[in-house]
Amino acid sequence: MNKGKLFILSGPSGSGKDTVLKQVLNKDKNVMLSISSITRQMREGEVAGEKYNFITREQFENMINNDLLLEYNVFVGNYYGTPKAPVEQALNNGTDVILEIDVNGAKQIREKMPDAISIFIMPPSFSELKNRLCGRGTESEEVINQRLNSALNEIKRANEYDYIVVNDLIENATANVISIIQSERLRLQRQKEIINEVLKNVESSNR
Amino acid sequence: MNKGKLFILSGPSGSGKDTVLKQVLNKDKNVMLSISSITRQMREGEVAGEKYNFITREQFENMINNDLLLEYNVFVGNYYGTPKAPVEQALNNGTDVILEIDVNGAKQIREKMPDAISIFIMPPSFSELKNRLCGRGTESEEVINQRLNSALNEIKRANEYDYIVVNDLIENATANVISIIQSERLRLQRQKEIINEVLKNVESSNR
Repeated sequence: MNKGKLFILSGPSGSGKDTVLKQVLNKDKNVMLSISSITRQMREGEVAGEKYNFITREQFENMINNDLLLEYNVFVGNYYGTPKAPVEQALNNGTDVILEIDVNGAKQIREKMPDAISIFIMPPSFSELKNRLCGRGTESEEVINQRLNSALNEIKRANEYDYIVVNDLIENATANVISIIQSERLRLQRQKEIINEVLKNVESSNR
Repeated sequence: MNKGKLFILSGPSGSGKDTVLKQVLNKDKNVMLSISSITRQMREGEVAGEKYNFITREQFENMINNDLLLEYNVFVGNYYGTPKAPVEQALNNGTDVILEIDVNGAKQIREKMPDAISIFIMPPSFSELKNRLCGRGTESEEVINQRLNSALNEIKRANEYDYIVVNDLIENATANVISIIQSERLRLQRQKEIINEVLKNVESSNR
């Protein structure tokens, strides 16, 4: 059986990455989202096990010490990471897996799994990024500038990615991410079975 | 400006490659078919300049001698080849180009243009291939076996290709070829402009 493929999805705040990811998972039922383990408090509207598993610092540090994570980061004093076992299990079963992680996590994954395909979601322009980060206009200029700088720092590292998808319209960006996933499934490596199958039958019919 | 990408489409007789190609060109208006130059007689229903330019042996041999072809082959005593100039012009103008050629032509192209992306169209099974090659049932068993052997010899070389697309249903195969073309457009190399554009604006707004 063919192994699944690992996809990394990154993009700064304001890129619309979350919405695109949701649409991709809705439309392509053959790709599985990896659930991150995190130590921060659950927020209103979040469901345990949907996008995150909420675990204690002690549990997380245990995972670090036992090398049970594919990547992890500390953000505002909390741990965020990708548990190794479910990802490897899915890939071994032939299921494609998508990781939603930041540029630092992506770098760690590429080192451990060089076959991973990475996709960066870009805002269509600087002015549109600024518009999106201003949100409902209730935040101070300082907060907005912080967000803008953080987005800028991520975009500077977009050139570490295999593919760049511009999120001008959610539908376009979704279709483009799905194209990338689908085309990776059509690579020779994953299609050898069909070639062998046709050739095998030819030989047996010639006998 | 970004250069266009060269795509090679191959597949044995009975793979449905011609129909898939027609659909792809209908649906993706940003990819151009390369017109082959050939020396055989025009057949009923063919239009000069649509898929082929019909030229004389002398003209063709002149092109060979002046290195004006990307690839060429002899088939049943006639020359078939891909003129270099229109392909290079289109690629330099940022247009994607598709070549419909056989496994030998594909090999020549890969040597000259290693960036070319090659796609092999496969019949879904041996029995379906046999059905398709039997056609209207008017040909002798010998003719059918010849076709089958020739198809088999092409399929044996499918592993020289980047992507394998199984033509079970024309619509699926068409969508899959379009996914491959589209995903190649999203590669980092062709998206650097958008990254630079967003970053440039950020810098100028910080001044």
